[in-house]
Amino acid sequence: MKRTDVNSLGEFGLIDHLTRNYQPKQPSTLKGIGDDAAVIDNGKFKTVISTDMLLEGIHFDMMYTPLKHLGYKAVVVNLSDIYAMNAIPKQITVSIAISNRFSVEALDELYEGIYLACEKYNVDLIGGDTTSSLKGLVISVTAIGQGETDKLVYRNKAKAGDILCITGDLGAAYLGLQILEREKQIYLENPDVKPDLEKQDYLVGRLLKPEARGDMIEHFALANLIPTSMMDISDGLASELYHICSQSDVGAFVEEANVPIHPDTEEQAIKFKFDPITCALSGGEDYELLFTIAESDLEKVQYMPNVAIIGEIVKKEDGIMLHTTGGNIHKLTAQGWNHF
Amino acid sequence: MKRTDVNSLGEFGLIDHLTRNYQPKQPSTLKGIGDDAAVIDNGKFKTVISTDMLLEGIHFDMMYTPLKHLGYKAVVVNLSDIYAMNAIPKQITVSIAISNRFSVEALDELYEGIYLACEKYNVDLIGGDTTSSLKGLVISVTAIGQGETDKLVYRNKAKAGDILCITGDLGAAYLGLQILEREKQIYLENPDVKPDLEKQDYLVGRLLKPEARGDMIEHFALANLIPTSMMDISDGLASELYHICSQSDVGAFVEEANVPIHPDTEEQAIKFKFDPITCALSGGEDYELLFTIAESDLEKVQYMPNVAIIGEIVKKEDGIMLHTTGGNIHKLTAQGWNHF
Repeated sequence: MKRTDVNSLGEFGLIDHLTRNYQPKQPSTLKGIGDDAAVIDNGKFKTVISTDMLLEGIHFDMMYTPLKHLGYKAVVVNLSDIYAMNAIPKQITVSIAISNRFSVEALDELYEGIYLACEKYNVDLIGGDTTSSLKGLVISVTAIGQGETDKLVYRNKAKAGDILCITGDLGAAYLGLQILEREKQIYLENPDVKPDLEKQDYLVGRLLKPEARGDMIEHFALANLIPTSMMDISDGLASELYHICSQSDVGAFVEEANVPIHPDTEEQAIKFKFDPITCALSGGEDYELLFTIAESDLEKVQYMPNVAIIGEIVKKEDGIMLHTTGGNIHKLTAQGWNHF
Repeated sequence: MKRTDVNSLGEFGLIDHLTRNYQPKQPSTLKGIGDDAAVIDNGKFKTVISTDMLLEGIHFDMMYTPLKHLGYKAVVVNLSDIYAMNAIPKQITVSIAISNRFSVEALDELYEGIYLACEKYNVDLIGGDTTSSLKGLVISVTAIGQGETDKLVYRNKAKAGDILCITGDLGAAYLGLQILEREKQIYLENPDVKPDLEKQDYLVGRLLKPEARGDMIEHFALANLIPTSMMDISDGLASELYHICSQSDVGAFVEEANVPIHPDTEEQAIKFKFDPITCALSGGEDYELLFTIAESDLEKVQYMPNVAIIGEIVKKEDGIMLHTTGGNIHKLTAQGWNHF
């Protein structure tokens, strides 16, 4: 019997493969697989659903991930997907599997983070499943949100001439991860050395306790702005931009100089001998929003806080290009975080 | 620091502990934690959401679980929770984590079962997450259904005098599991011995490829019957009855002679030297429905196919009692499947 290694397809290739012949049939399924979240018709409002599974050893390392932060993050990354549809998260379900090495007190910490995220983002925990695992912690969160029919934003409606924007700054979470990995190695080699995390609050915080950009959805509503396409940046800007371009059948032109990088990110990247822009383009887990707007909406974002205009959408045949600060133009390569 | 073993609380104790101070706040959250599924208000219709996580080595054994069956079952057990609310499942999300020992072909088999269940139960697969695991397969399914406000059935509305009913027959899946476990041991001791599954189709089928009782929801609608309480039997009749009684603040009286047991279940139980009624009361994974109806609705179920009247709801102070075929009356003890 034929045996194809799952690694040969990659995550998105695997999803494409497994769903290639599948077509939803329910009239109420407005959007199925392939966006940040699925959309279900409920009359006036639409229900938006997104789900993510986090595994110990794959998505987080218990050596440097406080359980409270982990609970918080597990919720936030799902809310981020709902916001990326221009919808408002309202409820979550949380399923966890734990081995017997976890105590009730450890779970209390995890749930403290979950409840904190519920409080901060105004969502309800409405259910889940609690079971045991042979080894390691597994957390699966499903977020349920509400969107208005004419305001939901997908990945496939970007048009040539649209303006390409992102929120916040990029690359910080990736460097936070590198710092924690370095400290872990030092600790493993010599448990007496204290971790050197001084002045690393911003970078480490971006990794361990990310926030979802619900504030931007409010800004959009206030400015009466509906992006033409949007997704959250979990795998890295370059990778997400490829998704938008592929699904919208367009290309993109990115100005490297306009990609916002926090001073701490820049400084730490240089210390690690990384190119800061590579961290910003390919580092994941920033949970900022990548979105496109019609050119006619330009003034709506020009003075919007936390928004940077980083380029524009072009015709498909023009490809996805990066205009470097050095004056060169080359193809933008996507190196998202691939767990396979 | 205090360390409380999670085993000391049990699954439901743990859930109670983790959610003891939690109150949902969203006006649209009609029902949160504590029933088969959560209920969200969407105007005329209600969205009903349920989620379950299955782990290799805990919930299934890959040695005797064909992947296609596993995919099918992972969907069905979630649909069962939606039906148990007297709602109709419409969509599912499926998240999987796999180690690199799984091939694409193996996943194809798993998804074949998932799609088969979608087809049979008329639900759409609308999303999920696909990631890697260090070891073992994890499947997390969320089912989304639609219910009508006045027809949703919870666990907490059974009243003294109500009639206690179940669908189908009980104990078969438990014996199916015992058969497969026996064959596994024989195989491990001597791989040349062929498994002896002859005439075990029914029992093994009930474990590996359970069906959810969507047919009963249709019967209820046709008969204009709304049960006063309902849940699906995943942990065993005795355990589920305790949930209904505890949440409805009532007791129950069960006639052992009326609990339906399939002839194959009876025969196999005796071969294993088990008491058939114990298998029926405490064996789990039958995915039948346990429900209560008002006495005035009695004639609606009397000739309904696949329904057995097994007793009645009594006052709380009368406890949860079993009237045995031997004429004794004793307390019904719940020995649900506890994964902790």
